[in-house]
Amino acid sequence: MTTVTPSVAAACAAAKRASRVLQAQPSAVKNHALEAIADALSDRLEYVLEANESDLLEASENDYGGAFLDKLALDRARLDAMVDGVREIVALPDPVGEVIEGFRLPNGLDVRKVRVPLGVIALVYEARPNVTIDATALCLKSGNAVVLRGSSAARRSNAALAEIAITAACTAGLPEDAVTLLGGGREEIAELATQAGLVDLIVPRGGEGLKASLKGVATVPVIYAASGNCHVYVDRSADLDQARAIVLNAKLQRPGVCNAAESLLVHADVAERFLPDALSALSEAGVVLHGDGRARAAAPAVPVEVASEADWSTEYLALELAVRVVDSVAEAIAHINAHGSGHSEAIVTRDTDAARAFQLAVDAACVYVNASTRFTDGGEFGMGAEIGNSTQKLHARGPIGIRELCTYKYLVDGAGQIRA
Amino acid sequence: MTTVTPSVAAACAAAKRASRVLQAQPSAVKNHALEAIADALSDRLEYVLEANESDLLEASENDYGGAFLDKLALDRARLDAMVDGVREIVALPDPVGEVIEGFRLPNGLDVRKVRVPLGVIALVYEARPNVTIDATALCLKSGNAVVLRGSSAARRSNAALAEIAITAACTAGLPEDAVTLLGGGREEIAELATQAGLVDLIVPRGGEGLKASLKGVATVPVIYAASGNCHVYVDRSADLDQARAIVLNAKLQRPGVCNAAESLLVHADVAERFLPDALSALSEAGVVLHGDGRARAAAPAVPVEVASEADWSTEYLALELAVRVVDSVAEAIAHINAHGSGHSEAIVTRDTDAARAFQLAVDAACVYVNASTRFTDGGEFGMGAEIGNSTQKLHARGPIGIRELCTYKYLVDGAGQIRA
Repeated sequence: MTTVTPSVAAACAAAKRASRVLQAQPSAVKNHALEAIADALSDRLEYVLEANESDLLEASENDYGGAFLDKLALDRARLDAMVDGVREIVALPDPVGEVIEGFRLPNGLDVRKVRVPLGVIALVYEARPNVTIDATALCLKSGNAVVLRGSSAARRSNAALAEIAITAACTAGLPEDAVTLLGGGREEIAELATQAGLVDLIVPRGGEGLKASLKGVATVPVIYAASGNCHVYVDRSADLDQARAIVLNAKLQRPGVCNAAESLLVHADVAERFLPDALSALSEAGVVLHGDGRARAAAPAVPVEVASEADWSTEYLALELAVRVVDSVAEAIAHINAHGSGHSEAIVTRDTDAARAFQLAVDAACVYVNASTRFTDGGEFGMGAEIGNSTQKLHARGPIGIRELCTYKYLVDGAGQIRA
Repeated sequence: MTTVTPSVAAACAAAKRASRVLQAQPSAVKNHALEAIADALSDRLEYVLEANESDLLEASENDYGGAFLDKLALDRARLDAMVDGVREIVALPDPVGEVIEGFRLPNGLDVRKVRVPLGVIALVYEARPNVTIDATALCLKSGNAVVLRGSSAARRSNAALAEIAITAACTAGLPEDAVTLLGGGREEIAELATQAGLVDLIVPRGGEGLKASLKGVATVPVIYAASGNCHVYVDRSADLDQARAIVLNAKLQRPGVCNAAESLLVHADVAERFLPDALSALSEAGVVLHGDGRARAAAPAVPVEVASEADWSTEYLALELAVRVVDSVAEAIAHINAHGSGHSEAIVTRDTDAARAFQLAVDAACVYVNASTRFTDGGEFGMGAEIGNSTQKLHARGPIGIRELCTYKYLVDGAGQIRA
């Protein structure tokens, strides 16, 4: 029931032992524990808010900026959303024990490929206290033990949330070391990432700095929660009103997240009809535009900076957008495959051939036809919450939910079969 | 159509371009190419055998041992088996385009999770020329380009096989760089393993030395084809005749492979009835036995060496077996989870509770009830051939076949949806 442990290795060994118990718990026990966590959180909002208050005070004394404070801050609405998130995860079907496929071999052996927990998940995250609860709920639901390493800037908030969750989960019958919160020291990340045999997966959820600190160090499997250089391509056959709405939504609805659009590609045949109005609306909303020669020529009245080669590969995560005119869907696909990060890509078109070609050839986790890239999200996809979004191709691509926190094993039943 | 390329980076870039074409090929085209490869191989057996003859001559001049020469050697039967293997892969359903799941979101978006090729697979392997063809067929069937880095000791055999495969595949309409054979230089392994963005997966298929040469170097995703420290546990309720047959099969049928048994665990209640006869049969078959005190006491007439702690974790890959007496199925499970490599584990029992507990708690790719561990194999599981067997938990666990050489993407179809 401790929330700060003496050693990372000891904490991971204890988590591994807990994972052996946890992996065999039926859904009813796990859901009961999650309900208990949700109830305990509801009962102790004040306690969490006080801890968060202290973190916020220290952060403002240390001159952290507004965006940082906004991520760190909790209020009643955010805590309620956390509680709701836990209850949504309760409502999801248990991924553990699901028979992915099953067949009988010619020799009579019955084979079942069954989903099972990975074991111990380590999560490294920035100063967003809600991740403490989201990750705990997703890991417990999927039968995994979790080792949390939050930011020291959020240490009081995280400690309060983890204490509530651990106490509730233990009282509900889960093993004590199913959830562990580390202290937040810098050296813990490398230690966590080298507990091969104890940690089954480490997920760094944060910026490029965090990624860099793990590359070349990690000996345990890593899934990097993703950066997103996402595109919207407006085809010659697009409904231009629909295209305008999608482009504005993909860029403006929440510019700081990985599924926001960073580049707009427009077919030459519609550039002069589409760009003046769309770019003007973006510009008025405060978006700094970077265009190629043809894009700038198509909307001469709108302020559009000259795009450099670097713009095509930049994830602005801000009110900025690169704009380019292309001559075909094939050119749009080639541009995206050359510059995209494999996250979320959209085409706006009324042409079935163009839609099919785009979905077939674009190499990304999510490929949209006539919809905003902003839908790439575990919650939107009906997966409850998510640990993050993966742009890698192995194991999990796109939202990482409870099924992606599992592996599988083959259960084989025989009657004495031996190999000839 | 070149089989030796100037630079690893250039070869991988060309393979990446080819993979963009290959990933969109319908099954009919891919199967036609595989049929062409099988036909061409059948037509040119003599050519391959001559090349192999030269490799064998050089290897014996260099004093390679019998086991090495046996792996390197090709004959008509082995070539026929290679051809048959390719045709079996033709007969498998295409994994590409398979809809893994699909659903409609509350906002009307239709989501399909569709299996797609990984892109470029790099395979590093020892002097077993058949891997050149097996890997080519599996990668092409799954829509991937493949970069092969075989052993220099098999370079003439590999070059002959690759030349035949590449010529046939090109003639059948696949892109030229869909299959590339590198020269076999030592430095190529590290170069291949660092082509991030070009190579989507590297599979080292070989011993611990090869693994070590990639650990700490690879920046592209790796799946290590596995070592196996596999156990057979004979429960108190086992049919002892069945247990005897399974133990002998798991140890003796092919001792040098990863799914052979390396340890025997026996419940104390049946140790004195089971061990004298079973260990005597193993000993007579040439197996060197290493037992704990109780195992040695149970079979006093059989020569059993004193097992050291190291024996429990050793993959002998030879006619050696560690033997231990345990007091319960729980103790057997704990021993296996502590010492096993997560490959293949078997219980022999007539007790449903014991069978269920064992399958639930043993943390391994394949968990058998009343069958030999030797069945863990892509061919046996109906997957055609296999690239190798994985003991890791991420992405692929157990046999790596054509589906495991794929990733997935979400295709999302809308009618203008934007996020509120």
